[in-house]
Amino acid sequence: MEEKLKKLKCLLAEIANLKAANAVLGWDQLVNMPGGATEDRGEQIAALEHIMHAKVTSDEIGKLLDELAVGARQIDPESDEACLIRVAKRDYEKQTKVPAEFVTEMARVSTVAQSVWEKAKNHSDFELFRPHLEKLVGLRRQYADFFKPWDHVYDPLLDDFEPGMKTAEVQAIFNALRPKQVELIKAISQTKQVERSFLFLDYPENGQLAFGEKVISKFGYDWNHGRQDKSAHPFTTSFGLNDVRITTRFNSNYLPTAMFGTMHECGHALYELGIDKKFNRSPLADGASMAVHESQSCMWENLIGRSKPFWKHFFPMLQEIFPSQLGNVDVDTFYEGVNAVEPSLIRVEADEATYNLHIMLRLEMEIALMEGSLSAKDAPAAWNAKFKDYLGIVSPDDAKGILQDVHWSFGGFGYFPTYALGNLVSAQLWERMNKDIPNLEEQVEKAQFSEILGWLRKNLHVYGAKFEPQELVKKVTGSKITPEPYIHYLEYKFKAIYNL
Amino acid sequence: MEEKLKKLKCLLAEIANLKAANAVLGWDQLVNMPGGATEDRGEQIAALEHIMHAKVTSDEIGKLLDELAVGARQIDPESDEACLIRVAKRDYEKQTKVPAEFVTEMARVSTVAQSVWEKAKNHSDFELFRPHLEKLVGLRRQYADFFKPWDHVYDPLLDDFEPGMKTAEVQAIFNALRPKQVELIKAISQTKQVERSFLFLDYPENGQLAFGEKVISKFGYDWNHGRQDKSAHPFTTSFGLNDVRITTRFNSNYLPTAMFGTMHECGHALYELGIDKKFNRSPLADGASMAVHESQSCMWENLIGRSKPFWKHFFPMLQEIFPSQLGNVDVDTFYEGVNAVEPSLIRVEADEATYNLHIMLRLEMEIALMEGSLSAKDAPAAWNAKFKDYLGIVSPDDAKGILQDVHWSFGGFGYFPTYALGNLVSAQLWERMNKDIPNLEEQVEKAQFSEILGWLRKNLHVYGAKFEPQELVKKVTGSKITPEPYIHYLEYKFKAIYNL
Repeated sequence: MEEKLKKLKCLLAEIANLKAANAVLGWDQLVNMPGGATEDRGEQIAALEHIMHAKVTSDEIGKLLDELAVGARQIDPESDEACLIRVAKRDYEKQTKVPAEFVTEMARVSTVAQSVWEKAKNHSDFELFRPHLEKLVGLRRQYADFFKPWDHVYDPLLDDFEPGMKTAEVQAIFNALRPKQVELIKAISQTKQVERSFLFLDYPENGQLAFGEKVISKFGYDWNHGRQDKSAHPFTTSFGLNDVRITTRFNSNYLPTAMFGTMHECGHALYELGIDKKFNRSPLADGASMAVHESQSCMWENLIGRSKPFWKHFFPMLQEIFPSQLGNVDVDTFYEGVNAVEPSLIRVEADEATYNLHIMLRLEMEIALMEGSLSAKDAPAAWNAKFKDYLGIVSPDDAKGILQDVHWSFGGFGYFPTYALGNLVSAQLWERMNKDIPNLEEQVEKAQFSEILGWLRKNLHVYGAKFEPQELVKKVTGSKITPEPYIHYLEYKFKAIYNL
Repeated sequence: MEEKLKKLKCLLAEIANLKAANAVLGWDQLVNMPGGATEDRGEQIAALEHIMHAKVTSDEIGKLLDELAVGARQIDPESDEACLIRVAKRDYEKQTKVPAEFVTEMARVSTVAQSVWEKAKNHSDFELFRPHLEKLVGLRRQYADFFKPWDHVYDPLLDDFEPGMKTAEVQAIFNALRPKQVELIKAISQTKQVERSFLFLDYPENGQLAFGEKVISKFGYDWNHGRQDKSAHPFTTSFGLNDVRITTRFNSNYLPTAMFGTMHECGHALYELGIDKKFNRSPLADGASMAVHESQSCMWENLIGRSKPFWKHFFPMLQEIFPSQLGNVDVDTFYEGVNAVEPSLIRVEADEATYNLHIMLRLEMEIALMEGSLSAKDAPAAWNAKFKDYLGIVSPDDAKGILQDVHWSFGGFGYFPTYALGNLVSAQLWERMNKDIPNLEEQVEKAQFSEILGWLRKNLHVYGAKFEPQELVKKVTGSKITPEPYIHYLEYKFKAIYNL
C-alpha cells in the first residue's frame, strides 16, 4: 500500500501542478492579457485541459485507486491517507462517469447559449434565450442520469459543489429560513430608511485601494503568498497553497463595491492559505465545498466587515483617507449606511437581509426546471411571481429579472444555493467562535484578528477538502448546516438598526 | 504527405501551446509572483517541461518527421512546408541526441554552480567557483560530443543559438572587427570627454515610464498584443504571436537605463509581432537566431534610439517631462551625452563602441576553455590580460571581472557571441534599408516609423525561423554576417561626436 500511495501522490501532484499552471493562465487572462491574445489563450488552456483530462481519467490512476480503496478500509477513515484516497476516487468517478462526447456537446451548447444569453440580456428578450435554456436543462438532466441512482434529479448537480449534500436537505433548510427573512424585510420596509447618501460620493481609487490593503493586511492576508490586482469581476484564485491571489474592482461613485469586495475575496484567500501545507499538490488542497468557502468570505465581509466593532476601529482611518466625503459622518451613521436593507432587483447588489431570498427563488426554479414541473416558457412568469412574493417587488423587464445572472447560460445549475448555504455556515461558525473566544467583539474593535484567524485555521481551514461539507460543519459547530444562527444574527442586527 | 503534415502540425501546435503556457508561468514568476511561491512555481514549470520533453522527443513525431523529410525533397526547399519539416527535424534531433540522464546531470550541476557563483561573486572569490566551472566545461564538452562529427568542439554550442553557424566564421568576423574597435576607443580616449552629468540627476519613475511608452507606441508596438511591466532584469517574452510582452526596470538616478532598455526590448517584441501569423503555434513562430533577434533590439535602441534625428524629435518631449533636469541642456549635448564612450568594467553598462570587445574576450575564453588550451585556474589572469589589451583597463577584483556575468554559472557557453553578431547585423540591415528608403533619417526625425517597421516586417520579420541566420542575413542584405557596416557606422558616428 505504501508504494501504491506514493505512486498515487505522484500522479496527483502532476495533475495539481497542471491545474495550477492552468489557473495562472486563467488569472493572467482576466488580469493582464492584452485583448488581441484571446484566441491563443483559449488554445493554450484547451491544450492543458486536454492533457489534464487524460491524466485525471487514466486507467493507471483508476486501477491504483481501486486497489488503494481496498487497503483504505483497514485504516482510520479520518486519516489523511484514507481521506485522500476517498476524495481522489470521488473525483475520478465523477470524471469517468461522464462520456467525453457529452462533455464536448455540453461545451458546444453552452458556448452558443452564453453568447445568445448576452444578446438576450441586452435586448431583455427572454424568448431569444428560451430554446437554449431548454437545451441546457435537457443536457443537465442527461448529466444527472450518468449518476443514477439518486433520490432527486438535482442531487448530482448539487453534489458537484457540495459533495455529499442532498437536495432535500437544502430544501428543508431553506424552507425554515425563508419565512423568517420575508417577515424581517417586511418589517423593515415599514420603518424609516437609514441615511446612506454619503456612500455615493466621489471616492478616488487610490484611497479605496489603500484602505482595502490596510484592512486585509490586518485580517492577516499574507502578501508573501498573495497579491491583489484589478479585474472586471472580483475573484480569488490559487496556484497551490503558497500563492493565493485576489482581485477587486473599483466603483469611484460607490464606496462599498471595492471595500467589501476586497474583504470578501480576502476571506476566500485566507481559507486556502490556511489549508495544511502537507496537502499541497493534492486534491485535499482545496476548500471542503463552495458553501464552506463562501462561509469564509461572508464571515470576513459581513460578520466582521459590516459589524459595529469593526467600524469603531476602522472608520477614523477611512475618514482620514476621505475627509471631505466622510468628515461629517459619524461612525453610527456610517455603520447603518453600509447595512441598509432594501429589496432590490439585482442579486449581486443585494444586502444581507434580502440576499438569500434571491438565491431561494433561483433554487426553486432550478429544481422545478430539472424536475420538468416548470417549462422554460413559463419561467419568466414564475420568476416574477416568486420575486413579488419574497421581496415585494417586480422587475420591469427580464434583463433585470430572469436574465440577470450568467450561471444558467452555461448550464451552471447547482451553484446558486451554495451562496446562501455559505451565509448560514458563517453564522454557525461565528456562534461557535464566540463561545471559544469570549472577547471576540473586543478583539475586532481593536483590529486584533490573529486569534480569530487562528481559530478558523485550527478548526476549519487546516482540513482542506478532507471532509464533506456537512461532516465538516458538524465537526466544527456541533451541528450540520442549519438556519437558526443566521436568522438570529439577522434579527439581532437589523432590529437594532431599524429600531424594530 | 498532406495527411502526415497535418498530423505533424497538430503535434507541434500542442507543443507550442505548452511552451506558451510555460512562458506565462515564467513571466509571472519574474513580474508578479509573491516570493513565497518560488518552490511551487518550480514544480509547476518542471511538470510542464517534463510533459513537453516527452512530446518533443516522442517516437510518433520522430517517425513522422523521417517520413516527411523524404517527401520534402520533392518540394521547393524554401516553401513553408519544407522549412517547417527541416526546422522541426533539427529540433527533434537536437533533443533526442542528448540522453535524458545527461540533461538531469547538467541541471543538477548548474543549479549548484549558480548558487556557488552568486556567493563567489559576492565575495569576489573565483577559487570558490573554479571547481564548478571545471565541471561545467567538462559537461559542455561531453554535450558537444553528442553532436560529432564537427569541425570545432565549440560548434554545437554555438549552433544552439545560431543554427548552422560555425566557430570559424565567428572568429573570422571578430578578428576583422577587433582591431578597428580597439583603435577607435584608443583614439577616443585621447580626446575630451563629452558632458553627461545631467543623465545622473533624479528622474522620477512616472515620467520615465510615460516617455518610454510614448516612444515605443510611436515605434509601432501594438498594445493590443503586448504590455510592459517592471522586473528586476528587462526581458521580452511571447505567448504565441499575439501576445508579446516586454519588461523594464527603472533607475531613478540614471535616465538611460529604462529609456534605452524599453526601446531595446521593444525591438525584440516588434520582431516577434512581425512574424507571419500563419506560423503561429509552430516552431517557425520564432526569431531566426539570437543574433538576428539582437539585431532588432540593437536597431531600435541604438541605430534609431541613439541617433541625432531621433532626439531632434523626442528631446523636446523629454524636456517637457523633466524640465528641471533637462531644461538647460540642448539637444546636441544630450545626444552626445547618451553616446559617451568610456571603457568600463561591466558588459551590460558598456557603450556601443566598447561593447563588442567585452563579447570578444568572452568568446575567446570560452573557446580556449572548451579546447582545453586554457584551464579554469588560469582563467582570471587570462581575463585580465585580454581586458587590458582590448579596453585598456583592469578590474580591481574578480567580482567586476570574470565573475560578473551569470551565463557561465549555468554552462551557457555559446550565447555571448550572439550579442556582438547582432550589433553587426543591425548595421548591415540599416545600410540596406537606407538604400531602399532614401529619406530614412528624415522619417526618424519626424518620428514616422511605419515605413521602417514595414520594411523590417516585409524583408525580415515575416520569415520567422524559416531560414538559418546566415542564409537570412544574406537574403536580406546581400551578404552573410560581416563587420564592415558596423565598423563604418561606429567610425562615422563617433568621429563626429569626438571630433576625430
